[in-house]
Amino acid sequence: MASIEHVFVLGIDPGLTRCGFGAVRRTGSGGEFAAVAAGVIETDPAHELPARLGVLATELNLLFDEIRPDVVVVERVFFQTNVRTAMSVAQASGLAIAAAAVREIAVVQMTANEVKLALTGYGAATKLQVQAMVARQLGLNQPLKPADVADALALAIAHLSTAPVSAAIAKAVAK
Amino acid sequence: MASIEHVFVLGIDPGLTRCGFGAVRRTGSGGEFAAVAAGVIETDPAHELPARLGVLATELNLLFDEIRPDVVVVERVFFQTNVRTAMSVAQASGLAIAAAAVREIAVVQMTANEVKLALTGYGAATKLQVQAMVARQLGLNQPLKPADVADALALAIAHLSTAPVSAAIAKAVAK
Repeated sequence: MASIEHVFVLGIDPGLTRCGFGAVRRTGSGGEFAAVAAGVIETDPAHELPARLGVLATELNLLFDEIRPDVVVVERVFFQTNVRTAMSVAQASGLAIAAAAVREIAVVQMTANEVKLALTGYGAATKLQVQAMVARQLGLNQPLKPADVADALALAIAHLSTAPVSAAIAKAVAK
Repeated sequence: MASIEHVFVLGIDPGLTRCGFGAVRRTGSGGEFAAVAAGVIETDPAHELPARLGVLATELNLLFDEIRPDVVVVERVFFQTNVRTAMSVAQASGLAIAAAAVREIAVVQMTANEVKLALTGYGAATKLQVQAMVARQLGLNQPLKPADVADALALAIAHLSTAPVSAAIAKAVAK
């Protein structure tokens, strides 16, 4: 099993029109992070839903085979947030989670608030504050664009930041 | 392209705990139908969501490869219906639609009301009325159980019953 220091994490910001992804690993014992790959899978809103879901599934499978992450972190979505896109976001997240599971890649779901809390220490932080923190953690001079990519990288960094703490707590509780 | 008489249709009643499927074809020019395969894909509610979605995706892929339908009919789900299971039903439907799309199988979505209307001529028919009509259309003496299987077969029969009419209307409008 990979040690915490070498865990390679792929964040997925699920969406049908735009699905952000960002792969991050720690660069050293100092806790700095490096983005290894990042981008957006897009499907054409002018096409029918089945064709779009087919493209997204194919692209996610190719991505997971290429990146080969140890952990995939998928944003946990809620219906309340945006009723208009909730169905397609749910379907996109299902494809991402299933694509990881069939490859026996560990899957973690985090809410947007959990990501904000992990990165800024403040669950109600603005998107801009989170993006600024993502850039800082990756040693970049300016926030990453587009937002989908920044959000995906934020998921990966949030997991890398909190997983050692969560593991330590679980270990302490188990004693 | 297959003629209407030979179209082989697979209905999917999406769900994470129980996903019903039923494959139906016409048996002759008289309009009778025959169920070729039917059943339920189940995943264990005691397991984690990723493992369950992985199992469902794998089983759906195996099913589609084995059945090789011309058309997959997936029930169109709405968030309003059942908030508690809406997310997992949406994810299950996404997996079914994507599995069909990557195989270039045509996908049709139908609402429960459209199925009721197609089978009984009455959009507010009860589940029992629909199940009785499914059994009658398949030449069976009693309603099919479990309900997930009957619902999946109802989707397939509803498509086979209405597709010729829809095609004729589309053709007439195009003239």
